[in-house]
Amino acid sequence: MISTAEILKRAKAAASGTALKAEEKNRALGLMADSLIKHTADILTANGEDMRSARGKISEVMLDRLRLDEKRVLAMADGIRAVAELPDPVGRVLDEIRRENGLLIKKVSVPLGVVAIIYESRPNVTSDAAALCFKSGNVCVLRSGKEAFLSARTVVSALKEGLSAAGINEDYINLVEDTTRQSAAELMTANGYVDLLIPRGGKGLISACVQNATVPCIETGTGICHIYVDKSADIEMAVNIVDNAKTSRPSVCNAAEVCLVHRRIADSFLPELARRLAGRAELRGDSGVCAVIDAVPAGKDDFDTEFLDYIMAVKIVDSEEEAVRHIAEHSTHHSDCIITEDKSAADYFTAAVDSAAVYVNASTRFTDGGEFGLGCEMGISTQKLHARGPMGLCELNTYKYIISGNGQIR
Amino acid sequence: MISTAEILKRAKAAASGTALKAEEKNRALGLMADSLIKHTADILTANGEDMRSARGKISEVMLDRLRLDEKRVLAMADGIRAVAELPDPVGRVLDEIRRENGLLIKKVSVPLGVVAIIYESRPNVTSDAAALCFKSGNVCVLRSGKEAFLSARTVVSALKEGLSAAGINEDYINLVEDTTRQSAAELMTANGYVDLLIPRGGKGLISACVQNATVPCIETGTGICHIYVDKSADIEMAVNIVDNAKTSRPSVCNAAEVCLVHRRIADSFLPELARRLAGRAELRGDSGVCAVIDAVPAGKDDFDTEFLDYIMAVKIVDSEEEAVRHIAEHSTHHSDCIITEDKSAADYFTAAVDSAAVYVNASTRFTDGGEFGLGCEMGISTQKLHARGPMGLCELNTYKYIISGNGQIR
Repeated sequence: MISTAEILKRAKAAASGTALKAEEKNRALGLMADSLIKHTADILTANGEDMRSARGKISEVMLDRLRLDEKRVLAMADGIRAVAELPDPVGRVLDEIRRENGLLIKKVSVPLGVVAIIYESRPNVTSDAAALCFKSGNVCVLRSGKEAFLSARTVVSALKEGLSAAGINEDYINLVEDTTRQSAAELMTANGYVDLLIPRGGKGLISACVQNATVPCIETGTGICHIYVDKSADIEMAVNIVDNAKTSRPSVCNAAEVCLVHRRIADSFLPELARRLAGRAELRGDSGVCAVIDAVPAGKDDFDTEFLDYIMAVKIVDSEEEAVRHIAEHSTHHSDCIITEDKSAADYFTAAVDSAAVYVNASTRFTDGGEFGLGCEMGISTQKLHARGPMGLCELNTYKYIISGNGQIR
Repeated sequence: MISTAEILKRAKAAASGTALKAEEKNRALGLMADSLIKHTADILTANGEDMRSARGKISEVMLDRLRLDEKRVLAMADGIRAVAELPDPVGRVLDEIRRENGLLIKKVSVPLGVVAIIYESRPNVTSDAAALCFKSGNVCVLRSGKEAFLSARTVVSALKEGLSAAGINEDYINLVEDTTRQSAAELMTANGYVDLLIPRGGKGLISACVQNATVPCIETGTGICHIYVDKSADIEMAVNIVDNAKTSRPSVCNAAEVCLVHRRIADSFLPELARRLAGRAELRGDSGVCAVIDAVPAGKDDFDTEFLDYIMAVKIVDSEEEAVRHIAEHSTHHSDCIITEDKSAADYFTAAVDSAAVYVNASTRFTDGGEFGLGCEMGISTQKLHARGPMGLCELNTYKYIISGNGQIR
């Protein structure tokens, strides 16, 4: 086993060369995709072993996430090819300032350097994250969950073969071999080696990173998303949006968990909502809601829970202001929405709600790199530093200032 | 004494309202400046007490930093007025995407929320930081060094009077009253209350924040800046720039500490440099340097020391590549410079050196918010996440996505 310290050393060395050109990277991504397909049988064998070891230890949902088949490997390869098609984020001139003293100051996008990603059991994260890091000029250090380790190792070995075929240093893509907690702790504190740490996974993983990381870290994921149905809402639109945001894919972070309803529209909206979701999702209401429809009485925690399930907490509010206050207190600042026909209510809500994505009359399910036109995403940041909301290729870059003069002194 | 927890609670409450308008903020900044001048006598009295307590406990240099007089208070007020003149960073539309499904996605700059600043003994940081945070729409929580606490308290009280005169919540500007280490530790771990922590001060303070902060934090400051004199350098220009970068203000982070010299120009350049700096700065050379000029033999640590003094480490290198490798290993990635007449050497250096500011033929002393045309600065970031190099008003903002639809579901 190669030690995590040694892997970090190699990653840092790989990151300290000059940046690869766009064509080199795109060609290598194509070869990586080819190599993945070529190694489908190896990958499926390794995945089979992972599945056998995991069975009985993790839930059926998790097992399904872990499982690969030929179609899924093909999709992973297609994902890599799609990343190759995206514009290169490196070398964009973000700003250019000519000073009176003749200095020309250019602010130029550059890779971050070494990006470490700690994730769980989805093998496709291995190829997605590797492709996004590589395209954005970064060296990645991947730390897969234990359950998916054999799959991840085979995938990384195929990707490295692709790099090698392109004549590029294989150390651009690295997989941590130690799958104990020790290696996660090492990544979190690898100051001087890791330029950015991204945890992708459940609440426990993310809060462990926030608590323990001394390297820069971006919090991703947790979404307690709200939909506020304003007094002036179009009821049919409101029912459609709440239905979609709750039930189209409840296990993801941009699914809605809480519906706030203005008192003046509650009598007409709530029965429609209850009818629509009957037998499809459980509504947990506060006392006001339970007076109007037949809902499960909500417990206090229901307004602070990411259900990731066919359950929605519903509450009546007396004003936009109360809705905004409730969201400020209970939201994870991921995605929150107002449904209204009143422009001034919409303007107030979008100004006052401090979340990564604030919606007017659309489903929170759109918070996604693809849906935002970024072409891809590395996760959804719920913090405010550096990147907020979907992180695409540009968010995996930093910048530097290049200052050209002809002898200027101060 | 108000507890730090209570101050954080008030700060968070103040930050959760809707953003102030540009005119409101500028008017308030003017009243804050007026109030500072009106309270000059109180401020000088408090500062006199701070000076009396500190004498004998801190160095003369630190005492001078702590000392206020009428002129310095006037300069603090002028600083606030200058911030009022700058463009408002809040509400800039950074991107606007119209999707095929009709969704309009706007990426808009917004305040970070609560910004905490831990600093040391310069009382002008109190008013500077407060003004920059306020102008960028943030609520600040200031934690002054113990030596400057009475001065800081009087300054903050004057600033709050200005806010109050403008009809604005005084909780926009807060000073932590507990000056023990406990309050610094509380700020570092105030997750959910502090959106950004900026340490401004020495290496010890900054590394304590990096090690212990669980809230997002921006590393500022330490500068081991290099000047590489390439084989094709104009010798007169090189001597002028090295002299300026070393001696114009050696106590600041953008001063140069190390000079790397290409072997082929060493014989002609080094004697000129030695002549220019004779009696003004000490040169500590590696063996190659000491063979050419009469320099103090450099110890190993000299190439990893931020001298902040009239001392410079000097080393001969055999190539641009060796210069770049030395910088990669020893630089703090603040500001590094090449002096060359060769465009391809300049292009290689600016691409390969991974620092916040990379210079060609100009003094590293220009790394500064004012000199970069940002109008001001909150510090110089030496990390890559969020902000790199001088942080102006825009770097004290984050963004959110505002998505407008007419019923779109996914």
